[in-house]
Amino acid sequence: MNVQAKPSAVTTGPIRGSRKIYVSPPGRPDIQVPFREVAPTPAANEPPVRLYDTSGPYTDPAARIDLEAGLPPLRAPWLEAAGVEPGGAHRPRSGPSSAARPLARRPRLRDGGRPRSSPHCPRGELRAPWLDARGFETVEGRAVRPEDNGASGDRLLPPCPAPHKVRRGRPDQLVTQLEFARAGIITEEMVYVAHRENLGRLAAAEEAARRRADGEDFGAAIPEFVTPEFVRAEIAAGRAIIPANINHPELEPMIIGRNFLVKVNANIGNSAVSSSAAEEVEKMVWAIRWGADTVMDLSTGRNIHNIRGWILRNSPVPIGTVPIYQALEKVGGDPVKLDWEVFKDTLIEQAEQGVDYFTIHAGVRLAYIPLTARRTTGIVSRGGSIMARWCLAHHKENFLFERFDEICDIMRRYDVSFSLGDGLRPGSIADANDAAQFAELETLGELTRIAWAKGCQVMIEGPGHVPMHKIKVNVEKQLALCGEAPFYTLGPVIPDIAPAYDHITSATGAAMIGWFGTAMLCYVTPKEHLGLPNREDVKAGVIAYRIAAHAADLAKGHPLAQARDDALSRARFDFRWEDQFNLSLDPDTACAYHDETLPKDAHKVAHFCSMCGPKFCSMQITQDLRAEAERLAGLAAKSEEFRARGGALYVPEAAPAEKP
Amino acid sequence: MNVQAKPSAVTTGPIRGSRKIYVSPPGRPDIQVPFREVAPTPAANEPPVRLYDTSGPYTDPAARIDLEAGLPPLRAPWLEAAGVEPGGAHRPRSGPSSAARPLARRPRLRDGGRPRSSPHCPRGELRAPWLDARGFETVEGRAVRPEDNGASGDRLLPPCPAPHKVRRGRPDQLVTQLEFARAGIITEEMVYVAHRENLGRLAAAEEAARRRADGEDFGAAIPEFVTPEFVRAEIAAGRAIIPANINHPELEPMIIGRNFLVKVNANIGNSAVSSSAAEEVEKMVWAIRWGADTVMDLSTGRNIHNIRGWILRNSPVPIGTVPIYQALEKVGGDPVKLDWEVFKDTLIEQAEQGVDYFTIHAGVRLAYIPLTARRTTGIVSRGGSIMARWCLAHHKENFLFERFDEICDIMRRYDVSFSLGDGLRPGSIADANDAAQFAELETLGELTRIAWAKGCQVMIEGPGHVPMHKIKVNVEKQLALCGEAPFYTLGPVIPDIAPAYDHITSATGAAMIGWFGTAMLCYVTPKEHLGLPNREDVKAGVIAYRIAAHAADLAKGHPLAQARDDALSRARFDFRWEDQFNLSLDPDTACAYHDETLPKDAHKVAHFCSMCGPKFCSMQITQDLRAEAERLAGLAAKSEEFRARGGALYVPEAAPAEKP
Repeated sequence: MNVQAKPSAVTTGPIRGSRKIYVSPPGRPDIQVPFREVAPTPAANEPPVRLYDTSGPYTDPAARIDLEAGLPPLRAPWLEAAGVEPGGAHRPRSGPSSAARPLARRPRLRDGGRPRSSPHCPRGELRAPWLDARGFETVEGRAVRPEDNGASGDRLLPPCPAPHKVRRGRPDQLVTQLEFARAGIITEEMVYVAHRENLGRLAAAEEAARRRADGEDFGAAIPEFVTPEFVRAEIAAGRAIIPANINHPELEPMIIGRNFLVKVNANIGNSAVSSSAAEEVEKMVWAIRWGADTVMDLSTGRNIHNIRGWILRNSPVPIGTVPIYQALEKVGGDPVKLDWEVFKDTLIEQAEQGVDYFTIHAGVRLAYIPLTARRTTGIVSRGGSIMARWCLAHHKENFLFERFDEICDIMRRYDVSFSLGDGLRPGSIADANDAAQFAELETLGELTRIAWAKGCQVMIEGPGHVPMHKIKVNVEKQLALCGEAPFYTLGPVIPDIAPAYDHITSATGAAMIGWFGTAMLCYVTPKEHLGLPNREDVKAGVIAYRIAAHAADLAKGHPLAQARDDALSRARFDFRWEDQFNLSLDPDTACAYHDETLPKDAHKVAHFCSMCGPKFCSMQITQDLRAEAERLAGLAAKSEEFRARGGALYVPEAAPAEKP
Repeated sequence: MNVQAKPSAVTTGPIRGSRKIYVSPPGRPDIQVPFREVAPTPAANEPPVRLYDTSGPYTDPAARIDLEAGLPPLRAPWLEAAGVEPGGAHRPRSGPSSAARPLARRPRLRDGGRPRSSPHCPRGELRAPWLDARGFETVEGRAVRPEDNGASGDRLLPPCPAPHKVRRGRPDQLVTQLEFARAGIITEEMVYVAHRENLGRLAAAEEAARRRADGEDFGAAIPEFVTPEFVRAEIAAGRAIIPANINHPELEPMIIGRNFLVKVNANIGNSAVSSSAAEEVEKMVWAIRWGADTVMDLSTGRNIHNIRGWILRNSPVPIGTVPIYQALEKVGGDPVKLDWEVFKDTLIEQAEQGVDYFTIHAGVRLAYIPLTARRTTGIVSRGGSIMARWCLAHHKENFLFERFDEICDIMRRYDVSFSLGDGLRPGSIADANDAAQFAELETLGELTRIAWAKGCQVMIEGPGHVPMHKIKVNVEKQLALCGEAPFYTLGPVIPDIAPAYDHITSATGAAMIGWFGTAMLCYVTPKEHLGLPNREDVKAGVIAYRIAAHAADLAKGHPLAQARDDALSRARFDFRWEDQFNLSLDPDTACAYHDETLPKDAHKVAHFCSMCGPKFCSMQITQDLRAEAERLAGLAAKSEEFRARGGALYVPEAAPAEKP
């Protein structure tokens, strides 16, 4: 694989022990939401376990994968159907019933601050006319220029030949999910994510599946059952986003918000000294195979435009970027030479390609830079340091801040979501929660309100390196300052002393910050601080963060989260080894570890593993115990009696000090 | 390596980039406490960083390692010197000054619940006569029997030939650290651990080194500087233990308690289907190399006595065991055949060998067993399930509970500490914090008071599998029910769904429970639930748990913990790559990961890594910024002015909704 390598093959095929299924929401056979289903061994007499699935068509044996053709543009019909009228009124498709529906309706969901289950969208009404029909116009789009791919010269990677129409919303048209949500309109994306978050449960099946787990959600409001209307209301309130550029029709929509499942982002991207396009596309496919909900392409160096094209046309998950990286390449790598025109050009270039969210470091204000002067590790955000350099060189306010309204106007026309960058995040625990960090957060709160006023979806990036006792206040401040816009944190790393293990140091911080209310966790790989992650590092990072996100869901009391744990634990207790592997986050590795010491097929049904051996297997002994169920029942009665009598101990508490 | 393999070689040599040093407490040149010291590159002009070191003589290039001879018995002079008189009075070695010292003095350390720094033991007084002199008698000891090594037959491993005298305390003699502490006597072990916890700081250097970090310690009382008297008082109060069998003179003493550094235990041990003695000794040496503070030998199967001998004679850290495992081997593996005599015999056998702490599952009471009947995963503790089986088969109360006072009497005579086993800990998050678990914990609290009355040191084992929101109450209940006896938890694993990654799932829970007050964390390896860990798994588990323990120390506000993070972060910011590697928990892997993409020596001083490349290195850009220090100083003044004026934003908050 060399730098110019054109992507050809990626990892495909089902994840061990599961099959891909597609489930449609009631009344919407045209919307097909993907899941994975694990069927326990028949003898177990257990229902299949349905899992949230980020892996896209790559794990569907029926899908034909052709990277040059790109993925099927499943959102295209939703984006193209004409229907929404200028000014926000929508053209009904079937009768006038919807005309009576107030467009700017904002249902009152909050009841003493705690919304309950909100079945505002009962069955049968789902295929209502206000659901779709956006009719975005296609435009010619900006022509690709040589500098878009850096100084690639004869090492230019060919562009991805997949067909791509460029769409652009008009100023007088509803474009963003936020605008539709505020107008009371439920988009297909909203229907899709509601069904996805419910793991495909139907409203009718709700009762059976809901088992409200206990939990502490710190003021979040996770519903028992997610309705499309709930999704709409959360987006309208700014508490959730669906990052979904109208130029990324290949996307399988997902939602990011505190009242939904905690999500995971994986960063990929080459750097000037390492990696290639083929590697990066495979890293994307590999990352989503193991559970990345979104992927950020942080490529720098050569071929940046074309690599992004290959990734976008083949990505079923939202793609985020940091446009200032490419802008910097366009001015030869000198931050001082950056200006609004090159940045604006880059925004349009990437928005037309279909990037779903942009990290914008508009909070790195000139006045905050001196606050970093005495830090242990200064500024560790690449974008933050670039903007700080620019500000100081020109002694001017950050142009991203100065031009923020214009940035909003551009991003709104494609529904590119904001990921407001934390350019001043701490890079060591010594710098955690300092004046620079929180000054910027305050500014991000102000920018959030501006972006919302402009109709843009917004999430907020967070730290970084934070010791455990300083994590919670980060969430509290973010929620308060940024109006509950979704928080999207990098880690945090909780001690600094473990380079090569920062997927672990940070997954711990991530589990906690996710529990406290972070909506999406940006992974950290074992190579963080040391080098560019390879494919195995990407997997290690994603798995560590799936653990963190799931742990957060459990602790928040997500109603469906524990079902998978319980199914796996039952399999473990029953010695259904294959079921245990298949229900795990990484069946391949679980099986391989088991087989290291007990490789034979017979061992897959053995009632022990090599950890304790047959005689010392506590679970086998406990199973033996259960065989005495009759007797146990009798004992239970005795136990009650014993406890009712106060369960007095035979040994007096003050025993004699010595005994011969 | 086969099952009979006699240990021959283990991993030796310094840990990359550090040197072994020994530091004596003031006035005690005979006590030499080991540390590792990392000296940053001279150009950095940074002081050396002294690290707590569990690795024993194996990392000392000057030490001669001979597994057949065992480690030098450094505690022998302390244990042998005659001096403590029957009845607890001690024989002064130098003058009568100590006679005035009240023996049962318990200094009032608490001041509104929060002890301050307690310099009760000023310099110069340290070499006081009450420090040492125990004069334990040596006895012939129990003869080794064939069944001690199971049915080894011709596969019998030769015993470790290292010389070993069996010591036993008399009933009328002070034996345990708790007894000495209560008598107001500071043992050499207490002096040793105080110096060790201070990282060898001298009282005189205290001022300079103390930098009370901020933190939230949930009622712990971590002193700025640890004096031997503070150690004594904590042990006397039962809040800390020094597991140190008088038959384990090779031990480098360490302390386990909430007001000291959080410790890590690594489990090793063969099982009937896997591993050998040579492997287990190497696993012990390997585990302490990476930071295990204690090691539990959980061997079952053949050669169990002789493997333990090899481990003990070569272990500088406390060794724990679960004696019921060997007792079960002695009765042919059938729990029903267990009885008090075989168990008592096993206690004496192991106590004479030098085991420092025993897990005793005395809390698995007959009446609690039915409480596990409806659990998802029943009883998952091996010892717990064995005792449950016995109780039900005989329909009798657990004989460990019935005979608890006799067990205390035996353990006291060797100063074997109790690790009161949580035989009913949850094995899945579904079973966390249930009636069975907490019923047992209540009993463990009652047993703690009995053991204390008998003069025994005690710690309490804890779960297991617990979702994040249910962790804290475990510590709160344990502290309340068990009189603040040190808590020693296994994980907890916070979701069940990641077999093969349970070092990560559980390190997260461990970091949290350590923060809340757990004194020692029992590691979990990637092989947990799947098979017997190999050497690499042991390392992965230890490193993950060192991360957790250190994160807990930081969050609790341990005064010295952050020094290492800060030194590493400064090295990172200065691009001192070698220093960054050397200060990390695993210098070998950190360096290897860096070198994967940038292997040349020149890259070790490069101001970038392959993650971002030279142009995008935020830290390099920030360093450039700092070069403009003069200018920054001016800006700082402006920033103040700006903030004083209210830092008004240029953009009006309610921006127009659209812009052409």
